[in-house]
Amino acid sequence: MSDSPGTDGASGGLFGPIFAPDDPDGVQGETGDEAWLQAMLDAEAALAAAQAGAGLISDADAGAIRSRCKAELFDAGELGREGRAAGNPVVPLVKRLTAEVDKASGTASRQVHRGATSQDILDTAAMLVAARALAQILPEIDGLAAECAALAEDHRATLMAGRTLMQQALPVTFGLKAAGWLVALIEARRGLHRVRRDRLAVQLGGAAGTLASLGAAGPAVLSGFATELGLAEPVVPWHSNRVRVADLVGALAACAGAVEKISGDVILMSQTEVGEVAEPSGGGRGGSSTLPHKRNPILSVTASASVRRARAAAHTLQSSMDHEHERAAGAWHAEWQALSEALSATGGSVATMREATGGLEVYPGRMRRNLDATGGLIMAENVSTALTGELGRLQAHELVQAACERVSLNGTGLEQELLSEPEISRAISEEELDSALDPGSYLGSAQTFVDRALALYNEEVREMRDQDG
Amino acid sequence: MSDSPGTDGASGGLFGPIFAPDDPDGVQGETGDEAWLQAMLDAEAALAAAQAGAGLISDADAGAIRSRCKAELFDAGELGREGRAAGNPVVPLVKRLTAEVDKASGTASRQVHRGATSQDILDTAAMLVAARALAQILPEIDGLAAECAALAEDHRATLMAGRTLMQQALPVTFGLKAAGWLVALIEARRGLHRVRRDRLAVQLGGAAGTLASLGAAGPAVLSGFATELGLAEPVVPWHSNRVRVADLVGALAACAGAVEKISGDVILMSQTEVGEVAEPSGGGRGGSSTLPHKRNPILSVTASASVRRARAAAHTLQSSMDHEHERAAGAWHAEWQALSEALSATGGSVATMREATGGLEVYPGRMRRNLDATGGLIMAENVSTALTGELGRLQAHELVQAACERVSLNGTGLEQELLSEPEISRAISEEELDSALDPGSYLGSAQTFVDRALALYNEEVREMRDQDG
Amino acid sequence: MSDSPGTDGASGGLFGPIFAPDDPDGVQGETGDEAWLQAMLDAEAALAAAQAGAGLISDADAGAIRSRCKAELFDAGELGREGRAAGNPVVPLVKRLTAEVDKASGTASRQVHRGATSQDILDTAAMLVAARALAQILPEIDGLAAECAALAEDHRATLMAGRTLMQQALPVTFGLKAAGWLVALIEARRGLHRVRRDRLAVQLGGAAGTLASLGAAGPAVLSGFATELGLAEPVVPWHSNRVRVADLVGALAACAGAVEKISGDVILMSQTEVGEVAEPSGGGRGGSSTLPHKRNPILSVTASASVRRARAAAHTLQSSMDHEHERAAGAWHAEWQALSEALSATGGSVATMREATGGLEVYPGRMRRNLDATGGLIMAENVSTALTGELGRLQAHELVQAACERVSLNGTGLEQELLSEPEISRAISEEELDSALDPGSYLGSAQTFVDRALALYNEEVREMRDQDG
Amino acid sequence: MSDSPGTDGASGGLFGPIFAPDDPDGVQGETGDEAWLQAMLDAEAALAAAQAGAGLISDADAGAIRSRCKAELFDAGELGREGRAAGNPVVPLVKRLTAEVDKASGTASRQVHRGATSQDILDTAAMLVAARALAQILPEIDGLAAECAALAEDHRATLMAGRTLMQQALPVTFGLKAAGWLVALIEARRGLHRVRRDRLAVQLGGAAGTLASLGAAGPAVLSGFATELGLAEPVVPWHSNRVRVADLVGALAACAGAVEKISGDVILMSQTEVGEVAEPSGGGRGGSSTLPHKRNPILSVTASASVRRARAAAHTLQSSMDHEHERAAGAWHAEWQALSEALSATGGSVATMREATGGLEVYPGRMRRNLDATGGLIMAENVSTALTGELGRLQAHELVQAACERVSLNGTGLEQELLSEPEISRAISEEELDSALDPGSYLGSAQTFVDRALALYNEEVREMRDQDG
Repeated sequence: MSDSPGTDGASGGLFGPIFAPDDPDGVQGETGDEAWLQAMLDAEAALAAAQAGAGLISDADAGAIRSRCKAELFDAGELGREGRAAGNPVVPLVKRLTAEVDKASGTASRQVHRGATSQDILDTAAMLVAARALAQILPEIDGLAAECAALAEDHRATLMAGRTLMQQALPVTFGLKAAGWLVALIEARRGLHRVRRDRLAVQLGGAAGTLASLGAAGPAVLSGFATELGLAEPVVPWHSNRVRVADLVGALAACAGAVEKISGDVILMSQTEVGEVAEPSGGGRGGSSTLPHKRNPILSVTASASVRRARAAAHTLQSSMDHEHERAAGAWHAEWQALSEALSATGGSVATMREATGGLEVYPGRMRRNLDATGGLIMAENVSTALTGELGRLQAHELVQAACERVSLNGTGLEQELLSEPEISRAISEEELDSALDPGSYLGSAQTFVDRALALYNEEVREMRDQDG
Repeated sequence: MSDSPGTDGASGGLFGPIFAPDDPDGVQGETGDEAWLQAMLDAEAALAAAQAGAGLISDADAGAIRSRCKAELFDAGELGREGRAAGNPVVPLVKRLTAEVDKASGTASRQVHRGATSQDILDTAAMLVAARALAQILPEIDGLAAECAALAEDHRATLMAGRTLMQQALPVTFGLKAAGWLVALIEARRGLHRVRRDRLAVQLGGAAGTLASLGAAGPAVLSGFATELGLAEPVVPWHSNRVRVADLVGALAACAGAVEKISGDVILMSQTEVGEVAEPSGGGRGGSSTLPHKRNPILSVTASASVRRARAAAHTLQSSMDHEHERAAGAWHAEWQALSEALSATGGSVATMREATGGLEVYPGRMRRNLDATGGLIMAENVSTALTGELGRLQAHELVQAACERVSLNGTGLEQELLSEPEISRAISEEELDSALDPGSYLGSAQTFVDRALALYNEEVREMRDQDG
Repeated sequence: MSDSPGTDGASGGLFGPIFAPDDPDGVQGETGDEAWLQAMLDAEAALAAAQAGAGLISDADAGAIRSRCKAELFDAGELGREGRAAGNPVVPLVKRLTAEVDKASGTASRQVHRGATSQDILDTAAMLVAARALAQILPEIDGLAAECAALAEDHRATLMAGRTLMQQALPVTFGLKAAGWLVALIEARRGLHRVRRDRLAVQLGGAAGTLASLGAAGPAVLSGFATELGLAEPVVPWHSNRVRVADLVGALAACAGAVEKISGDVILMSQTEVGEVAEPSGGGRGGSSTLPHKRNPILSVTASASVRRARAAAHTLQSSMDHEHERAAGAWHAEWQALSEALSATGGSVATMREATGGLEVYPGRMRRNLDATGGLIMAENVSTALTGELGRLQAHELVQAACERVSLNGTGLEQELLSEPEISRAISEEELDSALDPGSYLGSAQTFVDRALALYNEEVREMRDQDG
Repeated sequence: MSDSPGTDGASGGLFGPIFAPDDPDGVQGETGDEAWLQAMLDAEAALAAAQAGAGLISDADAGAIRSRCKAELFDAGELGREGRAAGNPVVPLVKRLTAEVDKASGTASRQVHRGATSQDILDTAAMLVAARALAQILPEIDGLAAECAALAEDHRATLMAGRTLMQQALPVTFGLKAAGWLVALIEARRGLHRVRRDRLAVQLGGAAGTLASLGAAGPAVLSGFATELGLAEPVVPWHSNRVRVADLVGALAACAGAVEKISGDVILMSQTEVGEVAEPSGGGRGGSSTLPHKRNPILSVTASASVRRARAAAHTLQSSMDHEHERAAGAWHAEWQALSEALSATGGSVATMREATGGLEVYPGRMRRNLDATGGLIMAENVSTALTGELGRLQAHELVQAACERVSLNGTGLEQELLSEPEISRAISEEELDSALDPGSYLGSAQTFVDRALALYNEEVREMRDQDG
């Protein structure tokens, strides 16, 4: 979709492009005005086709309608302004589409929008927009997951400090951290995949949800409408049941949250004082005109910002399920822009973190230095355990504790302080102590967890490929 | 003001009981302090059992630990106050539990909480609390769905005005409206059921997610831990991957929204000027001490309020997925009370609307009078269609439009104004006109949609019974 | 500001124009891309002027810079795309502005953006955008308040049913309801006015908030910068203190909530079954192509939708105050679009409700009929009071209660049922009873409250005129 | 699970005490059930007194009522359970209070709650609760501000790295950072102070806002009611105008955000790899039973969590301004618990950060080492400026840039690399270079800004003391 005049904030302008890769075919394009307009027209065309299929109108009329259902024949901004009177853009669109079709066929023009109400077209368009946006977002998630899987694989043994409440706690590996990112993405992807497969449905109910003006043909038209568009057929019209929308944005919010975990960790690891990773540079990215030494994690930063906006948009939609009677007096109208934003901001955050992780520079040496920076204190728990056999739990704990305090006080290393204690040097050989102080010896199930995450990923990739292929 | 011992806001006090049926075994109880405390203790007991299963500790020690894992041995308020130093209630709980176990067995007391970190216990407890709360909420949803199904069945042919943007639009049936409520509930229930079945997992990772202190036994203990508690086993520890929490609260928000649709419609239909339904009265409910004529839809009102609170709690959790490194510095701590509130407020809203719909008084006569109140204008679309054959679309539309305007101007009825127009009286017999003006003749697929909703419901009920049974 | 290509969702496109009057000079224009671009350029120009004032650069250089600070020389979409590398549009703007200035003066071009950082320009631009948008919103509030004041004045004695929990309770007047709307608007306006006057400040701190590269001239430049732009001078740079932003959006949220109260009441009163008011029609507004009898309160509906979006944007900003160290890694970047939306959606809702109330059709006859529809039950409290002297409180209450029950049962009127009770007919004359049953006699302080509200309004208008004049 | 008597989540239980100092007289106590109960009783007592003042009831009756308006005579949990029927706790409270008063005086008991409706009592109680909670919160803010002022004063010259997007940018002082915290607190305090002074008002309108049953005495009673309680007198009843509530929670959200900035910075500075500050320890705070080296910034962590919850509660209230007609059907009922939480969580966060900053250990040596860790790169901008006179801007920039790159490549220091470049060593003396590389020489207006912040603080403190005193 082109970034044409009149497009909304999702896909262009002064701020939009900062938060997503410059890709006209990406999710930004699929949530812009042109995309919405085409989706509404696709709904009108499919409605005509479904009516032809049900024998209500002729194939020729349906064909004539379809031939005019092209976004380039209409002007989104004009429709927006004309739509103010009725409170939605479908009313002027139908009027203009009818006039367009009338140029080709007078009989066909009378069949435009037959039996439908504005909400039918707009809700169906919203689901098409969502489906098409998800068709962009899911591969981006896959791409980001692939990067995380590669990091997990490559760094399965790369030691780094595990940090809780931002304090070094125990050694972990960078691969384990990346495996955690990966599993969250897989879980979030499943949610989005399920929504796309099961929950995106056409809406067709006519003025009050009964399909009254279609007589007995309602169910047939509804079924044909869904088939035409490749969306699910709802059991009953869902014009004032917004669980589908809530399911969609709930999954988007979860996905955005999974991305935020990654971007947040990258930002923290990129800190000058930590320096364990750096985002890919090049093309002036992350630079500063005045500060030559700066290397900002700008992709993670903008992705984090997108997550905040995606989440807020999701909340708007979750807070707008109070649809009165057979059509809401406001809650429905609040959905359109919020849905665009939830999709585009989530998609932008995923694509941006894919870029960030794709070229992520990882510094195992610095990870190791950070791990060693506490002089071995991070291994105290393990040493204590190692001494328990010889000294008993209590004495072991007390002696190690005392050594730790001397390390903090003297700025020395733990090994030195341990060996200076005769009770300890009697109880454990220097070799055994070296081993107990080796972070690599105290990783528990880290590698197993990495393996499990990668196995899940490989299985998931296969399954997805089968489903999508 | 005293800081008295007690349950938290979810389950008691001055305001809590207003928003849920008085049922000590209901969801309110399952989300109170006692429930959390017992869930933490269940986690400690299961951890010991899993370690015994993996051969790390003796069965006797595990048994001794389990025997003391009883909420009544501890004081929640005391643990809360003591928990301030460490920032969570697990640290003091472990200390007190150890002391309790020590009374029974000195060796067992040294095995309490072995290999675990506070977050392991609290996250696992959160999932247990969620599972137990859902075990209360799902049957309440089933009960509410049953009421909606009965209303759909009983009122499948009960005519009422369909209203869009709060204006009468076309006739519908009350059964169709109830069918819409029903389908939304079924969809929301599926989401919660799936979360309960697939997404509630134990958390066990130790101090930094590696299970370092369990050596090679980590995976075995993790697996046994999950089996003991009847929760899922995660692929990797999820201490800083909150997609599970997001999935849970996303489903709760969708459920709350489905409830809000029902409560909102009941409130609107209960308006003095509409009067189509009334909530069950009795026991002073909905009454006013000074206004004898009032009959407030108080159950729907309090349910709507609970929905607002449930949603806000869900948003807190969706906004708290930014867990830094291996344990979050605040986002985690914000989850506990929000989770209780999301569960208890959603559950309260469901149970309350079950009461409201269970005894709902429906007034078909008033529905019909409201439908007729526009003097037949609501049928104008159908009359216009009926005249199209004889008069052509354009003339039919214009004559009907003119008649409608006379109705509004003169306060007459549409039939009268139509018959007073010779062109129309020539084109259609009075009998045909009667039929075209009959709302019951213009319901399109309303009945079919009711049938489809009930068929879905019956299928769903069977399936759920099979799954749960 | 024109609705040019590349403008964001606030001011154009398929959906934007539905939610605000079509006014290029209105708040929509002031929050679009062009407006932001010009505000950034105004900041650059003012910075140069302030440096000239402080003797750091020549007046000629400042003049040369200012002469190029024109939005039409730049392309917002281009800046957006180029801004992705650095994560904000200021970096490319400065580059392009420098090139533009260089055409005029080589020395001047070296002074562009001197001493400033991107955030200085963008935060200052945000405050300018807010100030200019508020300059549009405040008069719209005044206009809406004037309409509410007129309704309060005109309908100070127009009886209608007061409704609590959507049930008729006691008589009120429509004037009192409008007075309530009015007072809320005045309160909200005060909040916005105070923010505009006190809280919109320039931001200038340089790369880390010290104005390091301006040497000792920092405070002088800061002061001149504020004077140039007519914004407040902050005590210290506020780059990571977002209380100003929170104050602004807190006031916007309160304003949006005050509007929502009005739009919600109009929608409720417009219901077919209530019919007490109708929005102004004309130009196809609120109409339906297929349903000739419909008259949708579409302005109130779209205003309500805008309120939802305004509130969500405000929440995004309130949730983005966690600015790390000397510049936030994401929370800042999330502000820009959210601020535009908070301003434009609030402004759209106000302007839209001004239109709605401006031509509001009020139907006192229908209000009275609705009041009488309960057969006098709404006056039961008053009758009971009137009988207390003669019968004692208890007997009076019981007899009236019984009469009320007969009214509900028999569908009769309260007067008839009261007079049929000998104890009552003995205790009160028919004339006295008529008076006790007259809703107009039971309005308490309604008129006084209307007077108080109008007095407040008149005083406020005078004060505002003085302040703004 | 038992539904035991008790206080709500704000003030007790398993989780509540973790998030606030253990102070029964603090904000937690002022927002608990007992506090609400007493506030409702205070409202009833004041109403009686105001009626006596207006001559509607006798002083004796008012006295009798007041004598029973004591929280200890009632049971909050009981009232909560009984309040379910009517949907609020006032209805049962009035019943029980009447019975209590009746023991003392039969005539007085008939005057209980006269002319009022439940919302009058609950809204007025809410304002009293807010006033009393603010009376706790404001001094806590003052205390926190005093700590920040002391840090600003003490560390006005303590050099540290300024960090933007989490990367070291330019030198700042820790005093400047603390001055930024201080100014944000002062701004937030002003907002809360203004709300407390101007916006907390009694509510009194009777059943529908007209004070109908008080006849002509309405305004006099309203005025007396406000005087009795020390709250503002509203121009008109505000039962369905929630701008007052929005103003309150908007100010609370801003305050919480100001606290979050401080807690977030403390957490970041406490990171093991940064180590510039540590929270006060002692009493096991922030410790870990298994990890002897840990020192968690647990006060900042729990304060950050409280901020998240405070904000969510504020959003609930801002999203609940849609009060229908003369009393809302749900939006009102959602306020009570959310208001308690907004107050108690904000208050908890402030008090907790007061503790954290009160004993904050600051490590200037580590700040300096972190500043030097980039080998002088942080001073590159200044060196470049220093060389401009001799070499011209362009050559200076290029040579410095090249030296920076060598530093990054070789791990050397900037001074060494600069001096190794003959062009530079010719242009600047080693002494001049030393000076240009001295972070202390490149602080711009940092000290001035600290002075300005402290001056504002001192002025504010004086003013507040005058106002409060």
